[in-house]
Amino acid sequence: MNNNFDKIINHLKSQGFVFQGSEIYGGLANSWDYGPLGAELKNKLKNLWWRFFVKRNKYNIGLDTSIILNPKVWLASGHLGNFNDPLVDCKSCKSRWRADKLIEEKFPDVNAGVLSNEMLEEYISKNDISCPKCKKKDFTNIRLFDLMFKTFQGPLEDDSAKVYLRPETAQGIFVQYKNSQRTSRRKLPFGIGQIGKSFRNEITPGNFIFRTREFEQMELEFFFSPNDENNWFDYWLNQVKHFITKELGISTNNFIIREHEKDELSHYSNKTVDIEYNFPFGRGELWGIAHRSNYDLTQHQQFSGEDLTYLDQENNVRFIPHVIEPSVGVERLLLAILCESYCEEKLENNELRIILRLPIKLAPYTIAILPLQKQQSEKARTLFEDLLQYFDATIDETGNIGKRYRRQDAIGTPFCITIDFDTENDNCVTVRERDSMHQERININDLKSYLTNKSNM
Amino acid sequence: MNNNFDKIINHLKSQGFVFQGSEIYGGLANSWDYGPLGAELKNKLKNLWWRFFVKRNKYNIGLDTSIILNPKVWLASGHLGNFNDPLVDCKSCKSRWRADKLIEEKFPDVNAGVLSNEMLEEYISKNDISCPKCKKKDFTNIRLFDLMFKTFQGPLEDDSAKVYLRPETAQGIFVQYKNSQRTSRRKLPFGIGQIGKSFRNEITPGNFIFRTREFEQMELEFFFSPNDENNWFDYWLNQVKHFITKELGISTNNFIIREHEKDELSHYSNKTVDIEYNFPFGRGELWGIAHRSNYDLTQHQQFSGEDLTYLDQENNVRFIPHVIEPSVGVERLLLAILCESYCEEKLENNELRIILRLPIKLAPYTIAILPLQKQQSEKARTLFEDLLQYFDATIDETGNIGKRYRRQDAIGTPFCITIDFDTENDNCVTVRERDSMHQERININDLKSYLTNKSNM
Ligand SMILES: [Zn+2]
Ligand SMILES: [Zn+2]
Repeated sequence: MNNNFDKIINHLKSQGFVFQGSEIYGGLANSWDYGPLGAELKNKLKNLWWRFFVKRNKYNIGLDTSIILNPKVWLASGHLGNFNDPLVDCKSCKSRWRADKLIEEKFPDVNAGVLSNEMLEEYISKNDISCPKCKKKDFTNIRLFDLMFKTFQGPLEDDSAKVYLRPETAQGIFVQYKNSQRTSRRKLPFGIGQIGKSFRNEITPGNFIFRTREFEQMELEFFFSPNDENNWFDYWLNQVKHFITKELGISTNNFIIREHEKDELSHYSNKTVDIEYNFPFGRGELWGIAHRSNYDLTQHQQFSGEDLTYLDQENNVRFIPHVIEPSVGVERLLLAILCESYCEEKLENNELRIILRLPIKLAPYTIAILPLQKQQSEKARTLFEDLLQYFDATIDETGNIGKRYRRQDAIGTPFCITIDFDTENDNCVTVRERDSMHQERININDLKSYLTNKSNM
Repeated sequence: MNNNFDKIINHLKSQGFVFQGSEIYGGLANSWDYGPLGAELKNKLKNLWWRFFVKRNKYNIGLDTSIILNPKVWLASGHLGNFNDPLVDCKSCKSRWRADKLIEEKFPDVNAGVLSNEMLEEYISKNDISCPKCKKKDFTNIRLFDLMFKTFQGPLEDDSAKVYLRPETAQGIFVQYKNSQRTSRRKLPFGIGQIGKSFRNEITPGNFIFRTREFEQMELEFFFSPNDENNWFDYWLNQVKHFITKELGISTNNFIIREHEKDELSHYSNKTVDIEYNFPFGRGELWGIAHRSNYDLTQHQQFSGEDLTYLDQENNVRFIPHVIEPSVGVERLLLAILCESYCEEKLENNELRIILRLPIKLAPYTIAILPLQKQQSEKARTLFEDLLQYFDATIDETGNIGKRYRRQDAIGTPFCITIDFDTENDNCVTVRERDSMHQERININDLKSYLTNKSNM
C-alpha cells in the first residue's frame, strides 16, 4: 500500500505535477508546489467545483474574502482564546483540560510546563491520570489553539498590530454574510461559496499533499430557516456524493460515509458526516459536511454588535439562520483523484504502461499532436497552433511513437493525434484514445467538431 | 475626477462587487473583500489571463508555488534587507510618513522614488516640507521599514522558524524554473505563468483596491537565450497591449506606455516599460514589462549552489537564460476595467441609467430572466433553471420592468430575457441588449443557440 503511494508520489514529481517546495534550497518542511501539469489540474478542479457548487446551483452565490481579517473575527469564532495552552479533551465527559495542569495537579513536584507535547501525552497515559470530572482515563491527544500563523500589519510590532493568517475560509463568509445577502437580495435558503488559501501551523503535517500548513479550501456555507422542513443536510450530502462520483469519477468502493459519534461532534454541531477516502496510506478525511446550527452567526452578532438576524417577511419572524457546511481541501481532493486515476497495465509486448485515467475535463492536456516523422513536423505545428486556440493541447516530436504514447498516458492526455505519411494524401489523422487505445481515422476538417463532441462527453 | 471615483466606489459597494474587509468589526486598514459579483468578475478575469498567457500561448506553461517559501529565497532575490520603505516620523505629533510620498505630494513633478535616503532627507529639510497632520517641520531621519510580512512556522518562535509571506509571485517561478523546464521538456524560448496572492506591508496603502497589503498577481517569466535575436520585449509588450484592448476592451486613449528612465531602472534591468492607466484619482501603474536580464536565476544559482544553466544543444553552449517579465496586479486591473466600463446615461424619460459596459465574457451574469408579471413566474423559473446549466444566469421577479432593467444595467448583465403575456401563445421571449437597449423577439427553442452565438462574439 505505502509502496504504491511512493510510486505515485515519484510519478507525480517526475511528470511535473508536484514539486517539493523551495527544492533548490533543500525544501521547506512539508511544503509542495504545483508544477505545470499540477497547476493546470488544480485550476480545472477548482473551476469545476465553482461551477457545480456556485455558478450552476440555483441557490448559491460566490464570495472572495481576505486571508488577513480583523483579529476580532478569531475571538468570535473561538480560534483565539485558549491559545498557547496544550489542551486535551476528556472523550467521556467532553470536559477540556490543560495537559500540564492535569499532571501538576496529581504530581505537584513535576514542572510540566517544560515538557513537550509528546512528553505530556506520554506522561498522562503512563501515569494513569484521570479526568477530574468523570474519573475516566480516556483523553484526546493534545490540541494546540495557536494553530494560527500570526504576523504584524503596519510599521509597529506590538499587540495592536498583531493579525493572523486565516485558518479557514468559512469565517470570511460569516463575516460578509449580511453584505452578501443584502446586495444579492437573496431569500433563504441560499448558500455562499468560497475558494481560497488557509494556513494552519500544524505540528505534524504529512502524507505528501494530504496535510500541509498552507492549503486551499473550497467551502460552502448554506443558510436556511430553522423552520424549514427540507432535509438540507441530505441534500448537500447527495450533491457532494454526486460531484465525487459523477464529476470526478471516483468509485463508490473507494470511500465511506461516516457519521461523527456524539463525543466527536463540536459542541455547536448537531450532525457531522465525513466522507473518507481510501488513500494508499490509509483512510483519510476527504470532505466534511457539518450542521453548524446558528453558532457562527450568533457569535459574530455578539462580538460585532451588528444585527445578523434575518427577517422572514412571509411569516413575519426574525431569526439567525442555521448553516450546513460542505467543506473540502483542494489538495487532498486532488490527491484522491490522482490516486484513483493512477493505473499500471501490462501491454501485449510486456511493456509496462502507466496511465492516469483522469476525467477528460480534468486532464491537463486534452490532446497531444504527434507527427510520426520529421517530414510531418511543419504540418503538425500548423495543426497544433490551430487546435491550441480551442483545446488544451501539446505537441511532442521526440522519440518513437510508442514512447510518446507512453508519455501522454502517464500524464493522462485523453486523445493523441498522429500525423503520418498518408496525411498528405487523405488529409486524415489518427486519433487514439487513452484508456481503450482505440484508434480512429479522422479528416482534419472534421477534427475540431469530433474532439469537441468527445471532450464534452 | 475624485468625485467620480467616490461614485464608482459607492456603486461597487452597494451592488456587491467590493465590501470593506471585516466590515462588521469596523474593518481592517484598507482591506477589501470581493462580494458575489466581484468574486465572479475576478475569477473570470483570472481565467481569461490564464487562458491568454498560459493555455493558448504556444510558448508557455503554468505553475502554482507556495506563499511561504524557504527564507533563503528572499536572501537571494534581495528582498531580505533591501525591500523596504523609507519612513520618517513627525517628532511633534508622532505620525509616520513615507519620505518619498511626502515630497511627491508637495512637488508632484519630482520622482522621489529614485532618490537615495540621504537625498530624501536633504530634500525634505531644504524644501520646507511639513507634516500633513500637524504642519510642523521636524522629522526624524529615515528609518527603513521591512515590507515583508514575517511569521513563524512550527511550534517555536525563534529565528530558525522565521518565514515570510511572499512579496511577489515571481521568485516562486525562478526557484522552480529548473523543475518546470525539465519535466515539461521545454526548449528556450518558453515562459512560465503564475497567478497568486502576494503580501506587502505597505505603510500607505490606498486608492480603494489600487494598492492593498494583500493582493493578487498574474506574472509571466519568459526565458530566452541571450543570443536570440528576436525582440521578445516588443513581442510581450504587444501581447499585453492586445490583451488590454481586445480582450478587456480598454480604450487606448485611457492608458499610456511609459519607458523607465535610466535612473528609475533596477540595477539588473536593461529596460522596463509601465502601462499606466488614467484612473479617476490620477495616472497609476497597471502593468509592468521588465527585462530582468539573467539576474534572478544567477542569484538563485549562487545562493542555492544548484546549476541553473541551460544547455543549448544546437549550438552546444551553456548559459543562464535571460528573462522578460510582464507582471500585473489582479485588483488594479479589475479596477481599471470597472472604471472603464462605468457609465451614466440620461434616458428619454430623464431617468439616470448607470451601466457597467463590461465585456460579455467578464460580466458576472451573462443573462437575467425577468418575468413581466407574477403569472409568468413558474415559466420563468423553469427557463431559468434550464439556461443556468449553460449560462451564468440570474432571475429577478421584483419591481417593475424598468427598475429591473436598471438593476441589470448597473451590474453589467449583457442580456435581459423578458417573459410576457404573449410567451404563452407564441413561445417567444424578448431579449434586450444592455448597451444598445435593442430588443429582439426570440423563440425559446432558439434561445440557447442565439445566446451562445451572442456571448461568444
Ligand atoms: Zn471526563
Ligand atoms: Zn506632525
